[in-house]
Amino acid sequence: MNKHHKKPEILNVTTIARSRLFNIESVELKFSNGVQRCYERLRPARYESVMIVPVLGDDLLLIREYAVATESYELGFPKGLIDAGEEVLEAANRELMEEVGFAARQFELLTKLTISPAYFSSQMNIVLASDLYPQTGEGDEPEPLIQVRWPIADMMALLQQPDFREARNISALFLAHAVLHDPLRLHNAASRFR
Amino acid sequence: MNKHHKKPEILNVTTIARSRLFNIESVELKFSNGVQRCYERLRPARYESVMIVPVLGDDLLLIREYAVATESYELGFPKGLIDAGEEVLEAANRELMEEVGFAARQFELLTKLTISPAYFSSQMNIVLASDLYPQTGEGDEPEPLIQVRWPIADMMALLQQPDFREARNISALFLAHAVLHDPLRLHNAASRFR
Repeated sequence: MNKHHKKPEILNVTTIARSRLFNIESVELKFSNGVQRCYERLRPARYESVMIVPVLGDDLLLIREYAVATESYELGFPKGLIDAGEEVLEAANRELMEEVGFAARQFELLTKLTISPAYFSSQMNIVLASDLYPQTGEGDEPEPLIQVRWPIADMMALLQQPDFREARNISALFLAHAVLHDPLRLHNAASRFR
Repeated sequence: MNKHHKKPEILNVTTIARSRLFNIESVELKFSNGVQRCYERLRPARYESVMIVPVLGDDLLLIREYAVATESYELGFPKGLIDAGEEVLEAANRELMEEVGFAARQFELLTKLTISPAYFSSQMNIVLASDLYPQTGEGDEPEPLIQVRWPIADMMALLQQPDFREARNISALFLAHAVLHDPLRLHNAASRFR
C-alpha cells in the first residue's frame, strides 16, 4: 500500500497571469516514465491560515459572512490568514477576537488541511478553542459579521444547514465532534480514529 | 439564528487576468450599509465535479496521484470534473472506470461541498459507490495511478496518513463512515446527525 512513483521532474515554472491576490503559474513536468505535461497552478501560498472552532459553554460560535465567488452568505467557523511572523495559536486568538469578540485561554490543534492540492498549496490549521472570555479586536470586515450560537448537543445538525457546506468547515465539525465527545480529550484528534 | 444581511449589490465585474484554466475577476460590491469594496475571485465554475468513495467487499478504493501545487503525491478518493451534459452519477461511474478500473451498480449521493467560497465557486458532489464490477475506462493520466485498498473496518485510520489531508476527502471519509456504520442506510447522509 506504500508503493510510490518517483516524483516528476519540474522542468520549468513560469508566471503566466497575475493580479493583486492571485498569481497563476505554468509548470512543465517530466514524469518518471518520460511523459511530459504542462499544468497550471496558483502561486505557492506564502502563509498558512487558521480556522477556529470556539466553544462557549454549551454552544459553538459560528459566523455568517458574504462569499463573493458563490454570491451568497455562508455559515462557518471564524478563520483567517496567519500574518508574517505570527504563531498559529496567536493568529487563532486574534481572529477569534476580531470575528466573534472573544479570546480563549485554551487551544487544541486538531489537524492541518489542504484544498485541491493539484491547484492550490494553501494549508489551513484547524484549532479548537475553549475557556473563552470577552475581548474584542479590530477586524476589517465591510459589515458586521452575523454571529450564530449553535448547541454542541445538536452540532451535527449543522450538516443539514444549506449554507454550511464548505469542506474545511465540515471536516472541522467532524473532528471537533470527536474531541468534544471523547472524555479523555487526547491531544491528537486523529489518533481517536484507530 | 437566522438573521441575514441584505445581499451586497454587485456594481461591476471585470476579468483582470486569464490563463488556459483560470480566469480572475475583480468584483466591485456595495454592501447594504453603503460600504464599497473590491474583491477578487476566480471565474464562476462552469461544471461541478464528483468524488467517489468506492466500496469493494470489505475495502475502500483510493488512489495516489501527483499534485503539482503542493509538489507531492496525495492519497484520496477518485474524482473528476462532470462533463457538459453528463449526469452526476454517470460522471461518477466514468471516473471510477478510468481511475480504479471498476464500475458500480449502486450509488448514494452523500452531499455537495464547496471550497473557500470567497474565492472559488466550484462544487463537488460526494458519492458512495458499491456493488462494483471490473470495467476499465480510458483516462488521460500521464502515469498509472497508484491504487490503494483500505479496510473499511480501519477506515478512520486514514486520518493519520500524512498524505490524506485534503478537506473534501476528509469530509467524504466522515460522511461515508456514518453511512457504512448505519444499518438503516437512509438516503440522506446528513439526516443521520440530528
